[in-house]
Amino acid sequence: MTDLPKRIHLVEEGPREGFQIEKGPIATHRKIELIDALSDTGLDTIQIVSFVNPKRVPGMADAEEVVKGITPRVGVAYTGLWLNDQGFNRARATGRLDIRGTITTGVSDTFLKRNQNRSIAEQIASQREMVQRYVDLGIPVRRGGMMAAFGCNYEGDIPASKVVELVGVELDIAGEHGIELEYISLADTMGWATPMTIKRTVGAVREKYPDLELSLHLHDTRALGLANAYAGLEMGISKFDAAVAGLGGCPFAGNAGAAGNVCTEDLVFMCQEMGIETGVDLDKLIECAKLAEDIVGHPLPGCVMKGGTLQKLREAKANRA
Amino acid sequence: MTDLPKRIHLVEEGPREGFQIEKGPIATHRKIELIDALSDTGLDTIQIVSFVNPKRVPGMADAEEVVKGITPRVGVAYTGLWLNDQGFNRARATGRLDIRGTITTGVSDTFLKRNQNRSIAEQIASQREMVQRYVDLGIPVRRGGMMAAFGCNYEGDIPASKVVELVGVELDIAGEHGIELEYISLADTMGWATPMTIKRTVGAVREKYPDLELSLHLHDTRALGLANAYAGLEMGISKFDAAVAGLGGCPFAGNAGAAGNVCTEDLVFMCQEMGIETGVDLDKLIECAKLAEDIVGHPLPGCVMKGGTLQKLREAKANRA
Repeated sequence: MTDLPKRIHLVEEGPREGFQIEKGPIATHRKIELIDALSDTGLDTIQIVSFVNPKRVPGMADAEEVVKGITPRVGVAYTGLWLNDQGFNRARATGRLDIRGTITTGVSDTFLKRNQNRSIAEQIASQREMVQRYVDLGIPVRRGGMMAAFGCNYEGDIPASKVVELVGVELDIAGEHGIELEYISLADTMGWATPMTIKRTVGAVREKYPDLELSLHLHDTRALGLANAYAGLEMGISKFDAAVAGLGGCPFAGNAGAAGNVCTEDLVFMCQEMGIETGVDLDKLIECAKLAEDIVGHPLPGCVMKGGTLQKLREAKANRA
Repeated sequence: MTDLPKRIHLVEEGPREGFQIEKGPIATHRKIELIDALSDTGLDTIQIVSFVNPKRVPGMADAEEVVKGITPRVGVAYTGLWLNDQGFNRARATGRLDIRGTITTGVSDTFLKRNQNRSIAEQIASQREMVQRYVDLGIPVRRGGMMAAFGCNYEGDIPASKVVELVGVELDIAGEHGIELEYISLADTMGWATPMTIKRTVGAVREKYPDLELSLHLHDTRALGLANAYAGLEMGISKFDAAVAGLGGCPFAGNAGAAGNVCTEDLVFMCQEMGIETGVDLDKLIECAKLAEDIVGHPLPGCVMKGGTLQKLREAKANRA
């Protein structure tokens, strides 16, 4: 257990992940309400919108209005997601977002075609162009991202060697532009990871690139989200994406079932109970999770908001004594 | 990862755990339907009823009828739960159950009082009497059980030393009667365990009793069920209780939130994906989980029945090729 990190850093992606997949139209002011509540929990990085084709993802058509409507909190970075130059320009035009470049590839041709309408090779070429744009504009590029790193609904199991190879491609693209990536996020986009493949893939990347930090973006499609996060913690991973209440899922992952992200407050709970600092106020975050359920109008997967924290029970016991 | 067992043994407790806590009356023939379906999945031990006070647990008032109604399958052991001599006599009187004695204690006085109406000391005394009864009747006693081994909603955190102490008491009771326990089941009755406390407590018991096998009975109250199971697997634990679809929860645990057992098919899925044999047909088990949802009439926590198996996706890919 000695490899568990002392502290982790969380990127909250609930607003972006969640509101892109919900069927019903969600009022812009309610999205803003959740983002503002999340800003008050101690989370310091919140991905709030994506700038994608509103015809393909209608739930994000109001991205600009959302960005305009929030009350930014000092110390919190609000980010957006984009997949192409058009989206990037929209994000920049808001003037209110923390604009950072990412080099994103994916391990599955089929998934990339559905999600980005590009092959892996085309995606790599487009990332080269985007990085040049970022460099020209003086925009920092610190993060790499890798979709479907643990498996794909269309292409099946993904060997760790393929992930290592594409990590190399991302590092090469960065290197060509004199950039040193801070970390690469391995995404289990379609919920294929197990604790074993987390360890295997993280281990394989580490073996080749021992100084590269890794982050995990996990989906809880098949119940293994937190077990996978724990396996990551055991490997010393200290960066995780997560979504409050377990909001989310990818509209192009080809899976009708539950597909939310690993739930932020459940992950925070697990970490706190194991003595790992998160910087997050769990009680406030649980209130956000309940708010998210109220906003989407149906139950969300998060457990701790239903089961309650242990701290509350410890305090109740202390008060009785 | 070398400590992961090659195969695990599961005790299915869904029918007992689930039907004791559901509010609505569930028709006896539907309970039987689920048990018969579970019998066809490869599960070889199924706890199907509890013989408890029908005033306290009305959902188990038809225990005898359920036992009478099932179609026993050769090779499957059907078991029942009892907390006192009266329940034991009811179980024996059915003539159709696999009657095995268990030495059960608990780590929390308060919980034991609510659940069994006895203090720890009284529980220990009653177990001594019960074991004598089992021995007199020639009934095998192979299993110890320990409730609230990882924490208690009333008494808070439970130190591993207290678990070790009570494990010693159970082994003593067994020894007094010339019995060697095969294993002791540590129950996270109220969902307090974390991967860290699983490792700590299992490690502490192992240190003192290296030859004693342990089993885990986990509840998924706070999302950590499978992460805890994985931590157990990493410690070489190869026996787990589980409940199909995540049915269950304890009516006296003092928690209104989600409190089901770790979900059998999700656990089977995790194990199979990591190459650990379970002896269970996952597809058939998923059908049972859907049946369980239909019977209780509301969604149950199991994920794989919604997210689907990876094997199905692998086969779909192979068929396309």
